[in-house]
Amino acid sequence: MNVLKTVAIPVLNKEMGEKVTIYINTLTKPPGSLGRLEELAIQLAEMKNDPFPRVTQAGVLVFAADHGIAEEGVSAFPQEVTEQMVLNFLNGGAAINVFSRQIGATLKVVDIGVAASIEHEGLIVDKVRMGTQNFYREDAMTYEEAVAAINVGKRQANMLINEGIESLILGEMGIANTTTSSALLAVLTDQPVSKLVGFGTGITSERLLHKIDIISQSIKKRKANPNDPIDVLRKLGGLEIAGMAGAMLTAAEHRIPIILDGFISTVAALVASRMSSEAKDYMIVGHQSVEPGHLTAIEALGKKPLIDLGLRLGEGSGAAVAFSIIESATRMLSEMATFESAGISEK
Amino acid sequence: MNVLKTVAIPVLNKEMGEKVTIYINTLTKPPGSLGRLEELAIQLAEMKNDPFPRVTQAGVLVFAADHGIAEEGVSAFPQEVTEQMVLNFLNGGAAINVFSRQIGATLKVVDIGVAASIEHEGLIVDKVRMGTQNFYREDAMTYEEAVAAINVGKRQANMLINEGIESLILGEMGIANTTTSSALLAVLTDQPVSKLVGFGTGITSERLLHKIDIISQSIKKRKANPNDPIDVLRKLGGLEIAGMAGAMLTAAEHRIPIILDGFISTVAALVASRMSSEAKDYMIVGHQSVEPGHLTAIEALGKKPLIDLGLRLGEGSGAAVAFSIIESATRMLSEMATFESAGISEK
Repeated sequence: MNVLKTVAIPVLNKEMGEKVTIYINTLTKPPGSLGRLEELAIQLAEMKNDPFPRVTQAGVLVFAADHGIAEEGVSAFPQEVTEQMVLNFLNGGAAINVFSRQIGATLKVVDIGVAASIEHEGLIVDKVRMGTQNFYREDAMTYEEAVAAINVGKRQANMLINEGIESLILGEMGIANTTTSSALLAVLTDQPVSKLVGFGTGITSERLLHKIDIISQSIKKRKANPNDPIDVLRKLGGLEIAGMAGAMLTAAEHRIPIILDGFISTVAALVASRMSSEAKDYMIVGHQSVEPGHLTAIEALGKKPLIDLGLRLGEGSGAAVAFSIIESATRMLSEMATFESAGISEK
Repeated sequence: MNVLKTVAIPVLNKEMGEKVTIYINTLTKPPGSLGRLEELAIQLAEMKNDPFPRVTQAGVLVFAADHGIAEEGVSAFPQEVTEQMVLNFLNGGAAINVFSRQIGATLKVVDIGVAASIEHEGLIVDKVRMGTQNFYREDAMTYEEAVAAINVGKRQANMLINEGIESLILGEMGIANTTTSSALLAVLTDQPVSKLVGFGTGITSERLLHKIDIISQSIKKRKANPNDPIDVLRKLGGLEIAGMAGAMLTAAEHRIPIILDGFISTVAALVASRMSSEAKDYMIVGHQSVEPGHLTAIEALGKKPLIDLGLRLGEGSGAAVAFSIIESATRMLSEMATFESAGISEK
C-alpha cells in the first residue's frame, strides 16, 4: 500500500524553456516587458514539453467532505452547510460555478466524504467515509482510508485528463477545513499554530483563540510523524485534502499544470509535494488568500501567487479568477508576431 | 475654446452601491470573502447606476503619436517603430491584439499624431499634427492643438460608445512617451523628476541619467502652469496622451468604466482628472507597472491596482489582462445564488 511507488512525475524540460525564452525575445515587445506572463509561458512550456503550451480547456475538480473537528465549534457555519453547498455547486449557483463558466472550464463535483447521502445526478459519489472523526479526540481516519482518499483523487483526475483537459484547478468544500489545514500545515512546516490560523469563513476573535487551542492540543495528542505525509493526513487530515493531493500527483504525472487556489488547496499541494517532490514543478499559485497560513504554505512550496485580491472563499474560486492570466501567457506565445514577421526595427 | 465647460460627468449613485452591498451579503459565500471582487461590483454598480452592471462588451482605443523629444535620444527604440507598431496593431500581431481577442473586445487604432502617413484600411486617421515638437527646444504643440487632440479622444470614444461598448480600455503607442509622461507627472504632482523616470522600453543606466536631465531641463524651460492641465499638455505633452484624456472624459460622461493600463495611461488619467475631477470616479487601475512613476500617478488618483505582474509594455495590454477580473466581479453579482434561493443555513 505504498502510494508513493506508483507516482512517476516527469522532470521539466528545461531545454524547451530555453528555446521558448529565446523565442519570446523575438516577439514584438521590449524584452521582458510582459514580466510574469513571460515567466509563466516558459514554465508552461517546460511542464508541457511544448513550445506552444495550451491550458484552455481547463478542468475544475471540487472535492467535498466533512470534518469531525467541526464538533469543537471551530467554524462560523454548521456542518450541514457542506451538503447544502454541494447542492449549490450542482445547481450552478456558487462562485466556482460562475467563474468556471467564465473561463469555459469543465467542473466536476466529487463527494469524497460528506457526512450525508446526497442524491443528485450531477454528483460524482466516490466516498471514502461519512466525514472524518474528530481529531481532537481520535485519529481523523485510518491509514487505509487516507490512501483510499488519495486514490479517489488520482482516479478522478485521471478521468478528467482523459476527457482532454489541459490544466487542472482543485477546489474544495468542507465546513471546518481551515482548521484541518492549519493543523496539517503546522506539523508539515513545524511553525507555530498561532501564525497559521485565521478567521476562516468568518469566526469571532474569541472563537479564533478557541480554534488555535483546539488545533494545538490536537497536534500534541495525535503525534503525527512530520516525515510521513500519509501519517499526518490520517491523524489530522481531511478526505477532500487527501483527494486534492492525489489529483495533483496524477496531474503532474501527465504534465498537466495545476492551478492552486487558496489556503486549503495549497496545504493539499504541500502534502502532495511531500509525497513526491517533483509535483511542485507543475504547480502555479493562482492567488494570495487573506487566510494567514496561506503565505507560509506558498513559501513552503517556493512559489509566488499571481494575484492578491483579498479573496478567502475557497471552492477553487481564486484559481479560476486567476486562470485568464495564465491563458494570456499562452496566447502571448502562440499569437504574437515576431519583430521579423512584422518588419519592425529592433533597437 | 474652454474644453472643460463641455464636460458633465454624473455623480456616482451611492444609494445603488448600498443596495448592491446588501445584496452581495445574501450571495452564497461568507460575507466579504470575495474581497476586491465585491468592492469592484459595488463600484461598477455606482458607476453604471445598475444593480447588475455589465462590462463585457469592452472597447479598446489605442492612440498612436510621435514625440519630438525622441530626437534627444531618450528611448531604446528609433521613432519609426511607432509607425511599424501601428501596422502591427492593424495586422493583429501585437500584445494588445492578442489580449483584446482573448476578452472579446472591440479594438480601434487611432493615428492622432504619428510622424508618418500610414496607409491601412483598418486605421482611423484623426491626426492633429505629424508628431509633437521637441519640448526640450520648444513647446510640444499649441494650445489649439492640445484641445484638438482632446477632442479627437472625445469623438473616438463617443463613436465606440455608440457602438455599444460597456467598458473602455485606453492604450497608446508612441516612441519616447514615457519621457513625455514623466515630464507631465512631475509638473502635475510637483514631485522630483528622478523619482518618476524609468527604463521605458529598456534604456541603459547611462541613458536613464540623460533622460532625467533632459526632462528636468525641459520642465524648467517650458514653465508650464501646473494648475492648467491644457497648458501642461501643450508644453510637455503628447498627442496620444491628450487623446486618451479626452476619451476618458467622454467615457465618464456616459457612465462607462475606464480601465487604466500602465504609466502613460495613468498619467493621461491624471490629466483628465485635473480637467474634471469626477472623471476619477469612473476609473479602475488595471495593473501596477514596473515603471517607477506609475505608483505616483496611481496614488495621485487615489487608486489601487488590481494586479502586479511586472508588466511594462503599454498599448493597453495590462488593462486587457486585468479585464477578466472585472468581468468576474460582474458575473458574481448576476450569476451567484443567494442563501435563500439555494436553501443554505446562514451562520
